[in-house]
Amino acid sequence: MKAERVELQPGERLDDLLTQDLKIIQSDEVFSFSLDAVLLARFCSVPKAGAIVDLCSGNGVIPLLLTTRTGARITGVEIQPRLADMARRNVELNELGDRVRIELADLKTYHEQAGHGSFDLVTVNPPYLPATSGEIKGNPHIAAARHELFATLSDVTSACARLVKSGGKVAMVHRPSRLAEIVTELRAAKLEPKRMRFIHPRRDQEANIVLIEALKDGKPELRLLPPLVVHEADGSYTEELLDIFYGRKNELKG
Amino acid sequence: MKAERVELQPGERLDDLLTQDLKIIQSDEVFSFSLDAVLLARFCSVPKAGAIVDLCSGNGVIPLLLTTRTGARITGVEIQPRLADMARRNVELNELGDRVRIELADLKTYHEQAGHGSFDLVTVNPPYLPATSGEIKGNPHIAAARHELFATLSDVTSACARLVKSGGKVAMVHRPSRLAEIVTELRAAKLEPKRMRFIHPRRDQEANIVLIEALKDGKPELRLLPPLVVHEADGSYTEELLDIFYGRKNELKG
Repeated sequence: MKAERVELQPGERLDDLLTQDLKIIQSDEVFSFSLDAVLLARFCSVPKAGAIVDLCSGNGVIPLLLTTRTGARITGVEIQPRLADMARRNVELNELGDRVRIELADLKTYHEQAGHGSFDLVTVNPPYLPATSGEIKGNPHIAAARHELFATLSDVTSACARLVKSGGKVAMVHRPSRLAEIVTELRAAKLEPKRMRFIHPRRDQEANIVLIEALKDGKPELRLLPPLVVHEADGSYTEELLDIFYGRKNELKG
Repeated sequence: MKAERVELQPGERLDDLLTQDLKIIQSDEVFSFSLDAVLLARFCSVPKAGAIVDLCSGNGVIPLLLTTRTGARITGVEIQPRLADMARRNVELNELGDRVRIELADLKTYHEQAGHGSFDLVTVNPPYLPATSGEIKGNPHIAAARHELFATLSDVTSACARLVKSGGKVAMVHRPSRLAEIVTELRAAKLEPKRMRFIHPRRDQEANIVLIEALKDGKPELRLLPPLVVHEADGSYTEELLDIFYGRKNELKG
């Protein structure tokens, strides 16, 4: 087992990462990867080679999953030291140090070290809630993953636009309730939405997740992919969701 | 039959209007109502009373259908004389002259006669294609219904914003390919998207129609309704589509 060589911190556990023999360290105290992250890693249009950066990378789940789809160099950027450390151990655990690098950095200033337009693809699973919305629950790590404490939506889209090259792509997962703001912020940063997909818990329910891919300096013309339904009426997972979750169907292109 | 009292012009025919004993004059040469118009008439949140204006009203199908849902006064605005005339005869044919009025007018200047903020709801089924996109087919009437010849998307959203009152609603049907532009134009006019629904020809196909409702001076928070699928795998209409089409289920609130 690869796992033997990596030390777990208190409160951490080692989980299978769904596919391709990947393992992942996570912690309910600090960060556990979610369906959102997996959907984004399958949805985005990956370059075959080149460079990818994943912002708000958490424990590095998206970079790990992307290694199963591309030979590109992947950088994960995370602002919280404890999470960046966990992400680095996840890279080591899976012996992916030659392809994935984790940077402890602030997305608002990361272009100062990485340069403008350095990436073919930017992925981001940002906090969903405005800093001021409702009660901020949980410990500071969880709060920062949920609320826009370190970066607003506008900070995130601006960072994506600085880091991606012209003609490169930015893929984001977010809540549909914020969609109008997201579209506005993306377009203000010259990131033109080109593909969108909504995830509905059940066929007759409102969507609770949206996947969006934008093209830097692209022209307006959006494709609205078929809906993805998570649960059947009886509560079981749909076949399509399981296909995506376990990597049997890598892209949500419909 | 009511129909006896209204004269048909060459090329026109008299059809049933799906529900509630309404009849409609239409013409394939000039304008026939589409699924889009019916979906919009069922989707929009109607006030119980007050005033509604339908822009790009064509042969008046949306005002006619709205009379089955509300006691509000309804005005249809149409710029093409031949269509406005057809719409007026449709109102007369259905003896709805006390509730529906058709104005031959340009939406870009209609506020000069109607006043600013005069309506509780604006509905609009605008042309879908930019004036410059592709070949402009068909006769001038059909071309104007398809292409932005008389008004651009921005003209349409600006007109909606001028005519609706603060806290009133604007409901639009359009193509998903234009969605990013629509969201930008709506928000630029202080029309905040609040409800959105996508229509997919089949469950596993991309959406080809989007319904959007915005609130004048509203705060950002969008609800993304369950998808509406038009056809079953065998090509027959879905039960849900038929319910909406024939008015057995009036609103697409999910």
